[in-house]
Order: sequence, then C-alpha cells, then structure tokens
Amino acid sequence: MTTATTLQQTSRDEDVILALLTRVRQAHHDKDAAAIAECYAANAVICDLSPPLAHHGVDVAEKQAWLDSWNGPIELEPRDGKLTIDGDTAVMQGYTRMSGRPKAAGGPISFWLRDTICLKRGDDGWRIVHLHSSVPFYMDGSLRPAFDLQP
Amino acid sequence: MTTATTLQQTSRDEDVILALLTRVRQAHHDKDAAAIAECYAANAVICDLSPPLAHHGVDVAEKQAWLDSWNGPIELEPRDGKLTIDGDTAVMQGYTRMSGRPKAAGGPISFWLRDTICLKRGDDGWRIVHLHSSVPFYMDGSLRPAFDLQP
Repeated sequence: MTTATTLQQTSRDEDVILALLTRVRQAHHDKDAAAIAECYAANAVICDLSPPLAHHGVDVAEKQAWLDSWNGPIELEPRDGKLTIDGDTAVMQGYTRMSGRPKAAGGPISFWLRDTICLKRGDDGWRIVHLHSSVPFYMDGSLRPAFDLQP
Repeated sequence: MTTATTLQQTSRDEDVILALLTRVRQAHHDKDAAAIAECYAANAVICDLSPPLAHHGVDVAEKQAWLDSWNGPIELEPRDGKLTIDGDTAVMQGYTRMSGRPKAAGGPISFWLRDTICLKRGDDGWRIVHLHSSVPFYMDGSLRPAFDLQP
C-alpha cells in the first residue's frame, strides 16, 4: 500500500469513527438505549461512572432504565479528543461535559469527565470494545468526586 | 512478514510491555518516582485517581512527594489484564488492587481500581502514552467512591 493510500484509508477510518461517537452522543440525547448498544461490540468492557467496576456489553433494558431516570435529554459535549488509529485498533482520549436533569438530583447537573474509548474494526466495521469514563475524587479527606474541574 | 514472524514479534512485544508494567508496579513499591517516569512518554496523558482531570507527563518531584505521603510501600496487584497489540499501538485493560498506608488515612487502605493503559512503540521502545485509573462512585445520593468492589 502506498503512503497516500494509507493516509486516505486512515482519513476514512477517522470519519467513520467520529460519526460512530457522534451517534453515541445523539442516542443519549434521544434516550435510545438500542442505538447506543449498536455502537458497541457484544463483549465490550464498559467502565462507567457508577458501579460495578465494569459491564460486559450493553444491557439494553438496563441502559434504557438509566436513560429514563433523567428528565429530558442527556447532553454529552466532547472536547480535546485525540484519536489514534493503528491498523484495526483505535483509541480516542478526551473529555466530555455531561449535563441534564437526573430525577434523583432534584435539579440540573453539569460536569466534565475523562473518556478513554478503544475501538476495533471487525467484520461489520468499527465498534467500541472498551469505554472508560470517570471523574477523579479529592484525596483531601472528603473523598468527594471532583465535579468542578475544567479541561 | 510471515505469520510466524508476526506472532513471534507480537509475543516479544507482549513480554516487553508486561515487563514495563511490572517495572511501574515495582517503582511504586520502591517509591522511586524517576523509575516510574522512565516508563512514560514525555507528553503522556495521565488521568489519575485524584484531580486534575489529567497530568501531561510525569512530574518527578510531584510524583515523589505523593509517593512519600505514604508510610512504607505502595502495593499494586494486577488482575484480569487484557493486552491488545496492533502495530505500534497497545492497550492493556484490567484491574489493580492498590494497598498501603497513606499518612493522611491514619491506617491501611486497600481497594480495586480500573486501569486502561495505552502504549506506543517509539524510537526508544514501548512507553506508556496514556493512563486512565479510576474508581466509580455511587449515584445513590452519597456520591462516595466505591472502594468496596471486586473484579
């Protein structure tokens, strides 16, 4: 493969992956768990903000129940994403502002989290095989999640 | 390259990467910040347990001060690590039990965290280019970090 062809392929892969990640965010806005699940490999390792340590694959019913525990849309705003593609493996590292109105919170919330998203190209194209989303916590004795940070 | 050669190369890469990750853990046990820094690329994006959202590269003096804020060694016990190598990119996903005696805690602590470690092969071999370590938090109103989980 010539370098030009490789660059063209990488650029195409980048477009496909960025579109996939946009679909994930849109599906949160639309609160459509099935659309989220379509973006993940069946056995994806998902390290979410809340326990357990990891989910294995997206459980559509469980995800829908979580989406429905918010009033109105869940907004995810990406920032400073760095995408690395090497062969059939890709990694996106960046930050996401999550905002909306969880029913349990009694009001609007908005905070920045760290996202590491690993993808693989399989027979049916690129899928997320690993998501790691987190908020650090203060080790100042309070052990509270650091919802006040900016990227 | 034949498939046999590729497999042999991948196996060699795997050995080198696993040895690098062992060095990181040993350096925590030895409380040697310079030895930790040697395992990272200069511009590595490090999403640690505590704020900020990310460090850029290992600041040796800052890391040493953190290591010295523990009495005795810091033990890191890996479990269920899955290593994927594709060309010059590698991703390790797994869990780590962190235990020891932080001076501020007034006693021993021990908990499991999620680790996502991305590596790149550069001119001087494999280095960590991104670390994401985290503990999920309970969204039950308490917002406390979930230190009681098991992989």
